[in-house]
Amino acid sequence: MSADFFARHEELLNQAVAAAATRGYWSPFTEMPSPRAYGETANDDGRAAFEAQRNKPFLLEGVDSKVMGGAELSPLDGPLGIAYPKLTADQAVQAATKAWQDWRRAGPRAWVGVSLEILARLNRASFEIAYAIHYTTGQGFMMAFQAGGPHAQDRGVEAVAYAWQEMSRIPTDVQWVKPQGKNDPISMHKHFSIVPRGLSLMIGCSTFPTWNSYPGMFASLATGNAVIVKPHPSAILPLAITVRIAREVLREAGFNPDVVTLAVHDANEGTAQELALRPEVKIIDFTGSNANGTWLENNARQAQVYTEKSGVNQIVIDSDEDLKGVARNIAFSLALYSGQMCTAPQNIYVPAGGIETAAGHVSFDEVASAIASATQKLTADASKAVEVTGAIQNSETEARIEAARALGLPILADSIALEHPQFPQARVRTPLVLRAESTEPAIRQEWFGPIAFVVATESTDHSIALATEFVQQHGALSFGAYSTSPKVRQQLQDAAEYAGVALSLNLTGAVFVNQTAAFSDFHGTGANPAANAALSDSAFVANRFRVVQTRYHV
Amino acid sequence: MSADFFARHEELLNQAVAAAATRGYWSPFTEMPSPRAYGETANDDGRAAFEAQRNKPFLLEGVDSKVMGGAELSPLDGPLGIAYPKLTADQAVQAATKAWQDWRRAGPRAWVGVSLEILARLNRASFEIAYAIHYTTGQGFMMAFQAGGPHAQDRGVEAVAYAWQEMSRIPTDVQWVKPQGKNDPISMHKHFSIVPRGLSLMIGCSTFPTWNSYPGMFASLATGNAVIVKPHPSAILPLAITVRIAREVLREAGFNPDVVTLAVHDANEGTAQELALRPEVKIIDFTGSNANGTWLENNARQAQVYTEKSGVNQIVIDSDEDLKGVARNIAFSLALYSGQMCTAPQNIYVPAGGIETAAGHVSFDEVASAIASATQKLTADASKAVEVTGAIQNSETEARIEAARALGLPILADSIALEHPQFPQARVRTPLVLRAESTEPAIRQEWFGPIAFVVATESTDHSIALATEFVQQHGALSFGAYSTSPKVRQQLQDAAEYAGVALSLNLTGAVFVNQTAAFSDFHGTGANPAANAALSDSAFVANRFRVVQTRYHV
Repeated sequence: MSADFFARHEELLNQAVAAAATRGYWSPFTEMPSPRAYGETANDDGRAAFEAQRNKPFLLEGVDSKVMGGAELSPLDGPLGIAYPKLTADQAVQAATKAWQDWRRAGPRAWVGVSLEILARLNRASFEIAYAIHYTTGQGFMMAFQAGGPHAQDRGVEAVAYAWQEMSRIPTDVQWVKPQGKNDPISMHKHFSIVPRGLSLMIGCSTFPTWNSYPGMFASLATGNAVIVKPHPSAILPLAITVRIAREVLREAGFNPDVVTLAVHDANEGTAQELALRPEVKIIDFTGSNANGTWLENNARQAQVYTEKSGVNQIVIDSDEDLKGVARNIAFSLALYSGQMCTAPQNIYVPAGGIETAAGHVSFDEVASAIASATQKLTADASKAVEVTGAIQNSETEARIEAARALGLPILADSIALEHPQFPQARVRTPLVLRAESTEPAIRQEWFGPIAFVVATESTDHSIALATEFVQQHGALSFGAYSTSPKVRQQLQDAAEYAGVALSLNLTGAVFVNQTAAFSDFHGTGANPAANAALSDSAFVANRFRVVQTRYHV
Repeated sequence: MSADFFARHEELLNQAVAAAATRGYWSPFTEMPSPRAYGETANDDGRAAFEAQRNKPFLLEGVDSKVMGGAELSPLDGPLGIAYPKLTADQAVQAATKAWQDWRRAGPRAWVGVSLEILARLNRASFEIAYAIHYTTGQGFMMAFQAGGPHAQDRGVEAVAYAWQEMSRIPTDVQWVKPQGKNDPISMHKHFSIVPRGLSLMIGCSTFPTWNSYPGMFASLATGNAVIVKPHPSAILPLAITVRIAREVLREAGFNPDVVTLAVHDANEGTAQELALRPEVKIIDFTGSNANGTWLENNARQAQVYTEKSGVNQIVIDSDEDLKGVARNIAFSLALYSGQMCTAPQNIYVPAGGIETAAGHVSFDEVASAIASATQKLTADASKAVEVTGAIQNSETEARIEAARALGLPILADSIALEHPQFPQARVRTPLVLRAESTEPAIRQEWFGPIAFVVATESTDHSIALATEFVQQHGALSFGAYSTSPKVRQQLQDAAEYAGVALSLNLTGAVFVNQTAAFSDFHGTGANPAANAALSDSAFVANRFRVVQTRYHV
């Protein structure tokens, strides 16, 4: 059965491996929520499935825990009311360990076939998952669909493709024949087995529960590990649906569904820490705060720990052809999901003496005010604005906006509370844009949310030096820059390579610094403190399995 | 110039990549110290170069330290009398950091070309290096030549081949064109750069100074890192020669030779720890004791740490065709370099009720005594024995033999002190073979040196269970087994895969459990506590560099 899944997806797998090698545009899934791609009733069915789930227990076949948990509070309209079966760390580890014994012996074709079948079925469930993400994260529906559905699935397929490529490089059976001059050669048969690590713990986040989880989850599953999925307590449903679908496929393929286990916990419980320290857990994938990520790196020493933590993302403005286009592009990056993206820019460096543009010299204040105006214009109409900004996921982020206002820095664009036309309870805020000196301590930390600083520097050299230093010290997942000078662009590229952060140059159109495309853009570099791995590359998959050989004379 | 080096070795590189993929027999270097391969005068020249170096300062062009260090004591004939230029940790880090700036920008072709040219010249220096290893480690000359020369160089080329393969998977420049229905597609140019980590610290060991060092050293160098080579204070010369040759090639290629730096220290100095904690050091390769390796893993948190530590290697005897062949093969494995190999077997499990052989049932005592007799026979003639056993590298290992004798276990073969025919000062000892019960605490730790235990078990199932448990708890780099039963062999293979250790079945001929061949056998699995990496695979190289992209619209 699992062999069938491999055969079913083999062509797609080959395309995915080729796409990851050539890194041009490729996606196996349709990113538009169109009836033609997903079916005429897909949207209605997905919404209905989501609505039907509210205020009910979530059934996970094969898990008969009497203890239920979960208290998700939608940023859009309050309690989801869904109760999930709850396992203790012991129960989750025991179930996964038992299920792993057959799974670990099944081999790469089974692991990869099952993984790709799960991803194909997740794609068919894209609307249901999109509504789950829309309501748990507060993302606008289009982003919830695209980033949480097909784009997340792309990243899953990408991880599987890398896993397959690394595993299939190891031959299974080999004859080793060593010449001995005039004597008979020495001959040995050597068998190489791909041996997974064991249990893999995936720790989800509250803002991108699927997009940030699928790479690690599928990298581990496709290399034969059993995966314990631990959602953030405020965004359980998208991953619970994911686990339900994974378990259906595992069961159909003849495996114990506990190869993928859901570990739900409530906000005050240390389940993640408890699971992370279990000796059976050999791999951990984490997205979240610096504090929690660093704790895992320091304490879960028995495991390979892949972390994506926080950072201070940077934009350098040196000169440009089209200040309006620059300002529009940056404004959209700041407003998109209210800056609740790990790639959202925060510090925007502009020389105090101003910059050169196609329209002549422009002062610092003019640049700063162009950016501020563009954010205000973009969010002027609440009904359009909420499609971009979504809602603030939690009250800590809202409080952070107030804390930033209280810094006493000059306000270029104030953060306004908007009324959401559909969800009166939703916290909707326009971006706060502040002016800061380069010595301002506040710009040396992350302000997660719709908060940005336009920083006056001595010169572009100074801007680049600051950006480089901040990336190295505080980490960054994105770095944008604007310059019409080939020399400065070369300098920016060298600085980005030295600091270890991806560079986006002169974005004024439909691509934004906070977006990456699977199979082409690496997400994170693994070369600065914001993340110790990139999505996805060989390093992300190659240590999730080992090779064990058996040799004998023939 | 460096491009020339790449072109010079490109065909060899392609062969090496192909060999690592097919994993049949392949070696770029001649393992026999033959005049035909290495030149009629190579042996005499190498010996003369070694002799000329004794009792003199070691000159390293471009290093003008006034402080000298080093006090190597040859296990064969006493003080080497060589004084090496000594750098403080600060000096070494500063020199390497400065040299790295041009090196990091040079790119994969330069890094790989220079690495392969260094290896080619190391091959031509194989006799000089062999004498240096013979005299610092006490290895017999043939092993010093083969393992320290061509086999170590093979492992170096292997690491370079893996590095090249991983780096060359990343395209340099790509057009990304995303269709937009009826509108114009979105087009971007994307440039991908291979970005090395920074400084790489290679910590050598006293028994295999080159073989255990070249993989990490060349994996790091070929991925653009600068390498600080820190030899064990009792085996400096082989790595000092290596560094001298590396610096010659770097200089010829137009680079600052401090890309490869020698960090000599004396036995009582904490230079390794000081270097290991420097923030500039991003990669550490270590071979040595459990204590030091674990210290590095726990403390050098800013670095990728690749360790090969100690283990308790295992042999399970279930049944065989040819007890004499079994005993001969095991005896050679025990005697080879006096068990001072990380792969030397230690615990040999035999059912207390005896085993089945082609000649009928054989009792436990008969099996144990066959192994003991074979070791005694192999080492009966001192002049032949020393070619196999070499000398004991240091007095701690000699003391360990006495400590093992003092355990009070029944002695199957006593460890005899032999007189070395050429070197009266050399400590030469035959293997100590003890009988132990399976509950004996002593078999649960490593006894580095010529010390083995024949352990009486309840059954082969019990033997396999013990071997599996010991591998998982104490680590192992080798696992040998003998069985005529396909069912038991399958059980052994599953146990080896579960525990994560390479299995050698029914070795009775010219291959020994402690030997691995580059390009075919992985050394270590990375899946048990003895080593967190394997030589060499993708995981060993893929995280020594990162990829940084620059994208812009076209």
